Amino acid sequence: MSELYAVRRARLRDRCAAVGSAAALVSRPANIRYLTGCAPAGAALLVHEGDDTLLCPSPPTGEPSEGRPAEDLRVSVLPSAPGGDPVVAAAEYAARAGADSVAVEEHHLTVARHRTISLVVPRLRLDDLGCAVETQRLVKDEDEIACLRIAAEIADQALGELLESILVGRTERHLALELERRLVDHGADGPAFPTSVGTGPHSGRPGHVPTDRRVEEGDFLSVNVGANYRGYRCEIGRTFVIGSTPADWQIELYDVVFAAQRAGRQALVPGVECREVDHAARTVLEGAGYGAGLGPRTGHGVGLEIDEDPQLSPAAMGKLDACVPVTVAPGVHLPGRGGVRIDDTLVVRPETDGGPELLTITTKELLAL
Amino acid sequence: MSELYAVRRARLRDRCAAVGSAAALVSRPANIRYLTGCAPAGAALLVHEGDDTLLCPSPPTGEPSEGRPAEDLRVSVLPSAPGGDPVVAAAEYAARAGADSVAVEEHHLTVARHRTISLVVPRLRLDDLGCAVETQRLVKDEDEIACLRIAAEIADQALGELLESILVGRTERHLALELERRLVDHGADGPAFPTSVGTGPHSGRPGHVPTDRRVEEGDFLSVNVGANYRGYRCEIGRTFVIGSTPADWQIELYDVVFAAQRAGRQALVPGVECREVDHAARTVLEGAGYGAGLGPRTGHGVGLEIDEDPQLSPAAMGKLDACVPVTVAPGVHLPGRGGVRIDDTLVVRPETDGGPELLTITTKELLAL
Repeated sequence: MSELYAVRRARLRDRCAAVGSAAALVSRPANIRYLTGCAPAGAALLVHEGDDTLLCPSPPTGEPSEGRPAEDLRVSVLPSAPGGDPVVAAAEYAARAGADSVAVEEHHLTVARHRTISLVVPRLRLDDLGCAVETQRLVKDEDEIACLRIAAEIADQALGELLESILVGRTERHLALELERRLVDHGADGPAFPTSVGTGPHSGRPGHVPTDRRVEEGDFLSVNVGANYRGYRCEIGRTFVIGSTPADWQIELYDVVFAAQRAGRQALVPGVECREVDHAARTVLEGAGYGAGLGPRTGHGVGLEIDEDPQLSPAAMGKLDACVPVTVAPGVHLPGRGGVRIDDTLVVRPETDGGPELLTITTKELLAL
Repeated sequence: MSELYAVRRARLRDRCAAVGSAAALVSRPANIRYLTGCAPAGAALLVHEGDDTLLCPSPPTGEPSEGRPAEDLRVSVLPSAPGGDPVVAAAEYAARAGADSVAVEEHHLTVARHRTISLVVPRLRLDDLGCAVETQRLVKDEDEIACLRIAAEIADQALGELLESILVGRTERHLALELERRLVDHGADGPAFPTSVGTGPHSGRPGHVPTDRRVEEGDFLSVNVGANYRGYRCEIGRTFVIGSTPADWQIELYDVVFAAQRAGRQALVPGVECREVDHAARTVLEGAGYGAGLGPRTGHGVGLEIDEDPQLSPAAMGKLDACVPVTVAPGVHLPGRGGVRIDDTLVVRPETDGGPELLTITTKELLAL
């Protein structure tokens, strides 16, 4: 595994050299984990001519939730002096090691820290690394996909068990907490994101924060949950009906969202424009008269972060390559009534490999619970 | 309540005027919540001459966990266009409203966003607001302290219930999850921070991420937990012994940490230097020969964030005022063996009001469970 991280850092070094920066100073935690195998809180990574150094405020613990540092990596634990900022220390280190310039993540670094570096190491030129590491992270290798696959299995299991329990009368918050406990029971390092459970009028609302509302007969119940397994995060969303018979409007709305989600999934072929995938799903919802309240996108990439590039939205640039995992997650929320959201994590695969690989396999039938 | 937020924003406006900025652009979520009563994800707040506007990517939900916007506040939900950044939109809004300058939170704003504002609104001068809002947040009013008091009660209840259950054989992760479930049971909006449970060699380690290690007879068990109630976050840490009789080294270590924590608590009087409080606790640990592995600080402020100013550390500047809530949390971790951490949340109060108010009242006796 260590070799893998060395290869990733070598690619980043090449990229820096190509744009004239002597070193890269990485501060975004997911990027640090991608390049080193671990991400202790507050760490900074300097990638510089075979002298890659991870600067940490405290020693890496080596726990799975945090990851283990690659063996060939130099790990430097800063003395616990107040004001000792690993990012600034990394810049000082680069200057001492002879670098005349360092590329920083301007989309992550604050103005204040950037200024502090300029003051502390004035002769070091600060370039912009941009999203170089995020771009490297787009296409996943099979080890990364294996982690996502396990994360998805865990989420499927947790959701499946919840559905076998009695739901009526329980609050959104308790259902969310129980799901998170089950994720950990099944081996997750934790939830991939705050679990969302919405009932009745809250159902189908993206990012709904669970409340004390209790599940009632006749409700839509929508669940969005995901597991974090060795840093890799997946997402599954399903909507159910509580009671024996769904109402006509519920069946109709469900069918429309299901059709939209299927259209999005089917559009996932290597080389497709991101916006075409969004368009495939969105058109179905718009055609059924639900165009007004739609969100800005119908899916996004997943990996070391639950919400990473690519974005599946009308104005998204770029194409989907093979081995890029994305969510396809269209939904409709009718204010005051509720709604439906169906969300899968899939990996883009060529037709010859069987087409898109569905990681979250819980049924998408409309279950009446 | 709305009036309260208006008063806070008026103070900020005065502060901006005093340093020559026409408006303040606040991006840090806890600062936005302090000034408006709510903090929808990704929002930005413009405070400008009675024209205070909260710019949000989606409508505030009004749920307790997110807070309700003050009634006198203008709330502007941005069209869900890709690339629509509320911070940039707030700067554009300020310029349209006639401001020639705006003070931004350089310690929170990224270099990339700062640059985008300069490009989109070139004639707007960008000043540094610094930690003006954080400074306002230091001294709490009685409504804020009431929220912290409830948060502490909830954490005490959750911890108390856990202690009544059987612990041997259960994993750190499951104990942490159960504590978090109990917090919500008792009315918390959620945990104040990721609950830390450490057993045996993991005990006493600050910020320990729970693992699959199971509680064993003879272990130290250290727990760090806190509740979030209406945005306000408290912290309690206790260390227990598993089994009927603690070992001599455990009793000795516990007594030293307890004495250090008591010394820290007793130092909490209005007007004391922050570093004196740290010194009071630290000296006891150093005197007992545990100086080597001590962390950089022995406590910190709490409020809308679990870790805010003031810092209780050897080099901390400034004094503690009355009505400032802080943690006093010294600890010792002996690598390979474990350790002890005792952590309370208290409010600094003058002697005439009975001295420091202890919010977390769970016993600090060494319990053998």
